[in-house]
Amino acid sequence: MDDAQLRELAIAGTSKIVLMVLDGLGGLPHPETRRTELETAAIPHLDRLAIESETGLTIPVAPGITPGSGPGHLALFGYDPIANNIGRGALEAVGIEFPLQPGDVAARGNFCTVDAEGRITDRRAGRIPTETCVELCHLLEGITLDGATPLIAPVREHRFVLVLRGPDLSDDLYPNGTDPQHEGLPPLPVQPRSPAAERTAMLFNEWVAKAAAILRDKHPANFALVRGFARLPNLPSLEARYGVRAGAIAVYPMYRGLARLAGMTVLGKPATFADEIATLAEHWDAYDFFFVHYKPTDSAGEDGDFQRKVEALQAFDQLLPRVLDLKPDVLMIAGDHSTPAVMASHSWHPVPFLLHGPHMRGGESNGFNEPECRKGSLGIFPARNALQLAMAHAGRLQKFGA
Amino acid sequence: MDDAQLRELAIAGTSKIVLMVLDGLGGLPHPETRRTELETAAIPHLDRLAIESETGLTIPVAPGITPGSGPGHLALFGYDPIANNIGRGALEAVGIEFPLQPGDVAARGNFCTVDAEGRITDRRAGRIPTETCVELCHLLEGITLDGATPLIAPVREHRFVLVLRGPDLSDDLYPNGTDPQHEGLPPLPVQPRSPAAERTAMLFNEWVAKAAAILRDKHPANFALVRGFARLPNLPSLEARYGVRAGAIAVYPMYRGLARLAGMTVLGKPATFADEIATLAEHWDAYDFFFVHYKPTDSAGEDGDFQRKVEALQAFDQLLPRVLDLKPDVLMIAGDHSTPAVMASHSWHPVPFLLHGPHMRGGESNGFNEPECRKGSLGIFPARNALQLAMAHAGRLQKFGA
Repeated sequence: MDDAQLRELAIAGTSKIVLMVLDGLGGLPHPETRRTELETAAIPHLDRLAIESETGLTIPVAPGITPGSGPGHLALFGYDPIANNIGRGALEAVGIEFPLQPGDVAARGNFCTVDAEGRITDRRAGRIPTETCVELCHLLEGITLDGATPLIAPVREHRFVLVLRGPDLSDDLYPNGTDPQHEGLPPLPVQPRSPAAERTAMLFNEWVAKAAAILRDKHPANFALVRGFARLPNLPSLEARYGVRAGAIAVYPMYRGLARLAGMTVLGKPATFADEIATLAEHWDAYDFFFVHYKPTDSAGEDGDFQRKVEALQAFDQLLPRVLDLKPDVLMIAGDHSTPAVMASHSWHPVPFLLHGPHMRGGESNGFNEPECRKGSLGIFPARNALQLAMAHAGRLQKFGA
Repeated sequence: MDDAQLRELAIAGTSKIVLMVLDGLGGLPHPETRRTELETAAIPHLDRLAIESETGLTIPVAPGITPGSGPGHLALFGYDPIANNIGRGALEAVGIEFPLQPGDVAARGNFCTVDAEGRITDRRAGRIPTETCVELCHLLEGITLDGATPLIAPVREHRFVLVLRGPDLSDDLYPNGTDPQHEGLPPLPVQPRSPAAERTAMLFNEWVAKAAAILRDKHPANFALVRGFARLPNLPSLEARYGVRAGAIAVYPMYRGLARLAGMTVLGKPATFADEIATLAEHWDAYDFFFVHYKPTDSAGEDGDFQRKVEALQAFDQLLPRVLDLKPDVLMIAGDHSTPAVMASHSWHPVPFLLHGPHMRGGESNGFNEPECRKGSLGIFPARNALQLAMAHAGRLQKFGA
């Protein structure tokens, strides 16, 4: 069903839908106990909820494909994560909540070191402190170009974002940009992949030349590399697609930025999961769709810390009743991808999922974990279908056809 | 995910992946015992492997669609079996390992009998012996055409393959070719379906006229019919798609030919399954992906011989430890389609599948058969996704998106 067809089916309402995303939720068995993180954790509230819910496993992007945070979340927001992949530069901008506009071309930038002959001697300028990066970005804010406005923002250490804003820009540029990928070589010019991108390439090259003149005496960060040129995918908002007023609650900028791409309003400035739930309660009446992001599961998984991931799951479980007390009409507990502690990385494995709503079959799972969700009424299904299921349960989708 | 996107994710490595295809693996219950061939067979090694593996059922082409050998294998090699269907003439050429080149147009040929008025009296020329077919093909090798080179090769009995090789040929010809489909009628001219195919049609008709002149006195095989004009699908090789060096091991020419289409190197000249495993061991260091084909399951199924199919499964199981001893990083046990003995034909039923690798959940199946694989962690999934999963387990796919 395409966007236009879906929009025709969407109906307004006041039911409340909550999507809670435990980042990196899915896991793999511990080699000794043969139990996954979820099977190991004491999560009585999640287990009880699973018994009373529709459960399944989501495939975030495609079988065998390990998703980054971008595709993992866009799928849960109901978008095709492959057609709407976010390029490197744009994701970097999203990750610092830079207010990227349609038409902007964003690049990922590195401050680096070049020698007297102009050869790169350190692609990361010795990982300068973030404060230095902020100062250098300030220096480069004064650069002007003919036909586009350059906007620069620090990320962390040597990393910054460069955005060109103006009419008729193109991101059809070779992704390696000025970065020759190896030290000892001079920076390359930005090259267009098509005639339509020639002017944009010229503008980026002009910016690089002006930046080099300003940075000349700022050793070790005496040059700036740019690459990963990308525009934002043009996503219809959740409001346009489903008629929901959508609010997002997340501690980390990346997830706030991703939510904004889907047209959600970012709520509050929570520092902890407890803050997030308080923010949810505070805005309960003003929105009817909420995305709540929980990061500690992924962080522990990425660190390969099985026990800490177990504890992160338990900490989530302990506060879950506060969400249940708000009595959402539809509650989804989902993950953007698996991050098995035994792999210490994201993975392709399908992710446990539950949906609690007013019109459930359910009853197949005896708890919330990988093998129990495998038995669930929803089966193994693409993550991008989850939101549509939630809309159905919330009474937000009309009958299709007569 | 399209080919170009997949190629960007592929990473080189040295892990070993083995795909073992038991032809016609899936079955149906025996009407008396109510157990399928796999449930009936004593297959302790497969059963134990299933318990320790990710299991599921593959849909070879689409629900309800019974595949031939071509689509069944192309799906397991990771290609879309519908978009890349191999036309009749090209599959005939593949089946005799004729070295078809891109641009060649292959036709399936029949020696037939025509009467004095030129009407077909026997479309198969009384099924002449294969030796006669070989002799007649030799006679026709001398035919030359202006603008294309005709190449002819015997298949068996009255059947041969005719290939036109040259610039700007088209396979957009009506598939029935010169065959009027009924005896008592004269042969038809080859007809183009589009202007671009007019010259190719003319060349085939010229060849048929020259062949008729040569065969005039060779009763009963005094005429040659051609039909099923087809070019090869232009498949990117497994090496181009996934960066694997792929080797294929099969007793029968058809499967060796199909593997060659996927860019695999055909290894050895095995006559038995034991030979195939010896070939596998011999080439173990030189390749990192191996396709091993096992035919007896399909032959017994096609013959409707339930007990012989059970024995074929048992024979496979007995030699399986020799494969396990090689310690592949990822081992898949799969089938190209089902061939239930009770149907004595290929069928559309999903096919038992297992994948043993380094990052498994698993533990849901208590043996290797249709109902146990149905409970498995992989669910019911398209066969063409299997290879992508194997690549993930083998550490050959990068993260998608950041």
